[in-house]
Amino acid sequence: MTTEVLYKTNPLVFRERWIEFIYTLQDTICKGLELIDGKAIFIEDRWEREEGEGGGGKTRTLTGGLVFEKAGVNTSVVFGKVTDTMRRSLQIEGDTWFACGLSLVLHPLNPYVPTVHANWRYFELYNAAGEVADRWFGGGTDLTPYYLFEEDAKHFHQTLKNVLDDFDEELYPRYKKNCDDYFVNTHRNKETRGIGGIFYDHLRPDEHTDLETLFRFQQANGNSFLPAYLPIVEKRKDSKYAEREIEWQEIRRGRYVEFNLLHDRGTIFGLKTNGRTESILMSLPPRARWNYDHHPSPGTEEEKLLNVCLHPVNWI
Amino acid sequence: MTTEVLYKTNPLVFRERWIEFIYTLQDTICKGLELIDGKAIFIEDRWEREEGEGGGGKTRTLTGGLVFEKAGVNTSVVFGKVTDTMRRSLQIEGDTWFACGLSLVLHPLNPYVPTVHANWRYFELYNAAGEVADRWFGGGTDLTPYYLFEEDAKHFHQTLKNVLDDFDEELYPRYKKNCDDYFVNTHRNKETRGIGGIFYDHLRPDEHTDLETLFRFQQANGNSFLPAYLPIVEKRKDSKYAEREIEWQEIRRGRYVEFNLLHDRGTIFGLKTNGRTESILMSLPPRARWNYDHHPSPGTEEEKLLNVCLHPVNWI
Repeated sequence: MTTEVLYKTNPLVFRERWIEFIYTLQDTICKGLELIDGKAIFIEDRWEREEGEGGGGKTRTLTGGLVFEKAGVNTSVVFGKVTDTMRRSLQIEGDTWFACGLSLVLHPLNPYVPTVHANWRYFELYNAAGEVADRWFGGGTDLTPYYLFEEDAKHFHQTLKNVLDDFDEELYPRYKKNCDDYFVNTHRNKETRGIGGIFYDHLRPDEHTDLETLFRFQQANGNSFLPAYLPIVEKRKDSKYAEREIEWQEIRRGRYVEFNLLHDRGTIFGLKTNGRTESILMSLPPRARWNYDHHPSPGTEEEKLLNVCLHPVNWI
Repeated sequence: MTTEVLYKTNPLVFRERWIEFIYTLQDTICKGLELIDGKAIFIEDRWEREEGEGGGGKTRTLTGGLVFEKAGVNTSVVFGKVTDTMRRSLQIEGDTWFACGLSLVLHPLNPYVPTVHANWRYFELYNAAGEVADRWFGGGTDLTPYYLFEEDAKHFHQTLKNVLDDFDEELYPRYKKNCDDYFVNTHRNKETRGIGGIFYDHLRPDEHTDLETLFRFQQANGNSFLPAYLPIVEKRKDSKYAEREIEWQEIRRGRYVEFNLLHDRGTIFGLKTNGRTESILMSLPPRARWNYDHHPSPGTEEEKLLNVCLHPVNWI
């Protein structure tokens, strides 16, 4: 029996392999972050969905570290009946569904170390007979620095690009643009949240790319997170900073809050469909600030960062 | 010619009187706040809407005061063609529209002084002949303390109730409930933003209440703002506080941000329809904080405040 036939016979086999990958990745990433932090460790909250709904998650948060002020690395494995809200919002048909993913947001203490977000997810839809009617992967990684170091931006984007190029050289430009187009505060002159990365969704197996290839693609992306981010942390974590940098960090974190609460589809959908609020909002920064009509002074490092948010750059 | 006939002949007469009231109220409130602050003064930004749209506003902000960390008292007088977005979102019919109102949010420095929000507005819709096809008033005032003083809550609600009782004793219970129902973070166990106040909308002249009575009603409400709020400021502004109170103030301000960006219809509508972002978001607090899964300790003053947000109280 080929694996393809096996999946058709029992759809649980493939999704169990995905769950195992996600849990292993959560362990690996948390361990890597604890090592570079050198002080704080992740605390795990296991939670289950309310009665009548299925599954739960492992929310891991770290606070008050030497490097990370607030970090969340969460996994969830959830399933249930397709509801009318889901049919409308996600434009899907089907009887039951399954979703499993890892989502992380890291807010460092030092304003010279960028905030970072990443997410890798897998979704299955089943017909009334319990057969897989549809399935797709999504994911992405994006960087939100407070100060711009071009070498860091290049390293980050190059690391992500190298992974994609192994599959298809057309992917990086497309997924880089998706990211620039998605993480935008449209109400702030279309300022991006940060300096981008990659973002993709609805990757379905087809005649060109089978399920196993997509699985390897997701694994390669997930495994590239630490190599893309940690060298930047290592390089910037001991930079000197003072009140000025903290104020700017808090202002930019205000924009992060605005994006997540006003525009991020995942956050809004999760909160409106009875998701676990604390796990969803772990993405919010530890501190944020709103100064009326703030503009960085011309020629400053703060303005330089803002300019690349207003005019996204091709870093490679 | 009776005034009623005059309005029918020239709809501009009534709206000009409303504009004058709103501008005068803005002056009065700003002056009262500057007096109690004792240090900072309001700075005015006059702005006009983009080409093709009509009107503008006077955004007045005060920052870094002895009493107020950040305060905004804004007026706007705007008009234009009814767009498809307006037809859908506001469920209105008509050719052109006019809106004028005052909106204020005050964030004090001292965590024992409550944040407060108020708004009074008037809307007119015209048919193709330029005649008034519909008109209504809306408004409200609500208090967001960080620590609960029952005498302050009673004073605030009683002041608002006294004004409403002069018109109809059935209004306060109804508008108080509207307020409790509206300012709710549904994603936070239906926690209210604060301890409420009053909230009303779509007050149209009819056989029982004519336009002049509604105008006097709005004036009475607008003029009750300072008497409702200032005595509380006076009583609490010199209270001693330390890090603990500041942290709690910042956490509660995080909830204020969540409500405004996730749930407040005015904020979301304004930002999605090309409103002036800085004037809309002046409502956001100067600083906010998000601690993962924060719960005040049992028996503390912080928990006492949270409990009245989870279970709204009839203060009178």
